[in-house]
Amino acid sequence: MSAEIICIGTELLLGDIVNGNAQYLAKQLARLGIPHYYQTVVGDNIERIKQAIAIGTSRSQILIFTGGLGPTPDDLTCEAIASFFDTTLEERQEIIEDLQRKYSARGRVMASSNRKQALMPQGAEILYNPTGTAPGIIWQPRSGITILTFPGVTSEMHRMWEETAVPYLQNQGWGKTVIYSRMLKFWGVAESTLAEKVNPYLNLSNPTVATYAGKGEVKLRVSAKAENSELAEALINPVTQKIQNIAGLDYYGADKDTLASVIGVLLYQRGETLAVAESCTGGLVGKMLTDISGSSDYFWGSITAYDNRVKQELLGVTSQDLETLGAVSAVVAEKMSAGVRLRLGTTWGLSVTGIAGPSGESNNKPIGLVYIGLASSQGTISFENHFGASRDRTSIRHLSACTALDILRRELITTKY
Amino acid sequence: MSAEIICIGTELLLGDIVNGNAQYLAKQLARLGIPHYYQTVVGDNIERIKQAIAIGTSRSQILIFTGGLGPTPDDLTCEAIASFFDTTLEERQEIIEDLQRKYSARGRVMASSNRKQALMPQGAEILYNPTGTAPGIIWQPRSGITILTFPGVTSEMHRMWEETAVPYLQNQGWGKTVIYSRMLKFWGVAESTLAEKVNPYLNLSNPTVATYAGKGEVKLRVSAKAENSELAEALINPVTQKIQNIAGLDYYGADKDTLASVIGVLLYQRGETLAVAESCTGGLVGKMLTDISGSSDYFWGSITAYDNRVKQELLGVTSQDLETLGAVSAVVAEKMSAGVRLRLGTTWGLSVTGIAGPSGESNNKPIGLVYIGLASSQGTISFENHFGASRDRTSIRHLSACTALDILRRELITTKY
Repeated sequence: MSAEIICIGTELLLGDIVNGNAQYLAKQLARLGIPHYYQTVVGDNIERIKQAIAIGTSRSQILIFTGGLGPTPDDLTCEAIASFFDTTLEERQEIIEDLQRKYSARGRVMASSNRKQALMPQGAEILYNPTGTAPGIIWQPRSGITILTFPGVTSEMHRMWEETAVPYLQNQGWGKTVIYSRMLKFWGVAESTLAEKVNPYLNLSNPTVATYAGKGEVKLRVSAKAENSELAEALINPVTQKIQNIAGLDYYGADKDTLASVIGVLLYQRGETLAVAESCTGGLVGKMLTDISGSSDYFWGSITAYDNRVKQELLGVTSQDLETLGAVSAVVAEKMSAGVRLRLGTTWGLSVTGIAGPSGESNNKPIGLVYIGLASSQGTISFENHFGASRDRTSIRHLSACTALDILRRELITTKY
Repeated sequence: MSAEIICIGTELLLGDIVNGNAQYLAKQLARLGIPHYYQTVVGDNIERIKQAIAIGTSRSQILIFTGGLGPTPDDLTCEAIASFFDTTLEERQEIIEDLQRKYSARGRVMASSNRKQALMPQGAEILYNPTGTAPGIIWQPRSGITILTFPGVTSEMHRMWEETAVPYLQNQGWGKTVIYSRMLKFWGVAESTLAEKVNPYLNLSNPTVATYAGKGEVKLRVSAKAENSELAEALINPVTQKIQNIAGLDYYGADKDTLASVIGVLLYQRGETLAVAESCTGGLVGKMLTDISGSSDYFWGSITAYDNRVKQELLGVTSQDLETLGAVSAVVAEKMSAGVRLRLGTTWGLSVTGIAGPSGESNNKPIGLVYIGLASSQGTISFENHFGASRDRTSIRHLSACTALDILRRELITTKY
């Protein structure tokens, strides 16, 4: 038994909107443990919608539609469904009354085009829309096939799903098992390297382990299927623990954790404070740190020294450093971190200076060369990074900021003061 | 002739990510005037991928795949394609060499699992990935069918599409009528207000005008269909000109313009410089300004004074201001802007101080209260904003940063010094 999501709307085919409805329904199906192997997007065209229904009914038992329930002539979902299952549409008086009530509550008169929204396939159960005008249906047009329709408006769809569809599906005996996932997050390791290290776990069947990578980060999703979330967690916990042990410091957190939130917890626990000096990242490190509510407990502030004069006047970099070594150098990174730490009076000073491109490269300093400095009462250290001239400005800046945070994270975990 | 988008990845079926790749490709196909009637999402399962190919080839002539090109065992796109078209995979030496070059440039050694990414169907043309490790293919496995594959990583996919796939498709004679769009961007006006002002233009048929809104910004997409982009532009230009005249200062730019890029052009033309003092935005304003390559010409730097001590020591805010008025006040915003301007020696000083939430509200200062200060040789001014306690931290920070940039933009346009 599996479900298929069919999203209807030419705006999806034109790329005017992203398909957030499919993501929402996919998550919901996973949570209910209802398998789901296909999603289809099709435009406002009756023959193509019917073709999608033909394919869907050949491979799935529950078809979930979004979109195409409005009052305009290009809203064709109900018509296509009725035609495919060879039945007629009938006007439902209770929908007409519901619509008239809603319009009069808003001090308006129902437009005659809204009558279209009361036309439903014979025998279909109405799925009321508490907030909008487009009702949906739940219908078993033939044995083994269940149809659910929802409007494309996200907030209406969510409420109808949660209040009506979920209880219905559970009453039918579906959604008795749950799929529970934990996303493990890693920084400073390549996807292929991590996959080799945890290779035995990639072939498990329950829980399953899958790798993801993007923007310099590697993730492993550990998913278990069980009768309830406690049992699923009991399947997941030993596996995530073993993977974390194998990954060591490359593992930084799970689910909603970010590098910045993990650093926040560590600094807070240690009762320590942080100041940041940025050049090529221009404020991005500070932005990431202050994405976390409560970060004022440990993040005191930052100096973005985009111009070299600011590096000199506020951070203690000397004109000699800039002339002989250049702004993108280990020494300047270290002085920036020490300078901002001293100036703001914090436990730690963290700095980034590099060439984010696409311009700014020089003879022996390529785009993607980034130095990170870290200062504490124990002195300063610096780290040289080569993020590659083939990467774009946004990627290099993102990698630079995350790598700086990751360096501090590793230092906070491994050092005791 | 039509194209079909097939996105591969269990993470899409689990709802872990939203299908932004489908939206991007849909937009691109519309721009090229290539019809596209279906999108399919399928998991990392070879039989189901082959089934999607069977359906796709029965109704579309161009199949565009994203995802499933990585080095791990669940990356099955190439294998499924080769198997469906009854050919074998062969290791391409040139890909191995490219991968080795990329790894050694980053000071790493290629894992043996990466060799999998060099396995391509016999006869397929390689679509090189300039930024990542997963190459794609362009292949005509049989007459009338063209296959394109792209990695799921968005930035890599975009670059490969633009640099390689678009020229290829156009060489093949596809994309002969173009849909050409210009996205007009507005700040500081509600969608409904703008829609009323430009109402007559919303009913045109070529070009069409559609409104979009999100994250405080309003956009109008003006799209024309024509034989080439010059003819399409000739349809678009008079309409966009009239809309810009109606919108006045609320219009800030088009397409890739951002508030920060528009400010950059204005400052550069005036030969002026900018420094920023941030509190609740924590670096976001600086990050936005330095998203623009070349911003070092006019953006000298910023001080993020997250802790009140930093506001006092570096920005000239007094302890009396903080005690009597509080850090979130018009006076502190003005002093921060004047302080950073003085400290960094720039033409303009721009500041933001506010309560981004979810904590931090006080008796008469609600979440969403944000003051913006602007300092120049003419003195300082401040602006009080109420972004609303119902908004979340991310939205309030984004609105704060954009509004600060917009205030400077309006000042730069309307004042002459």
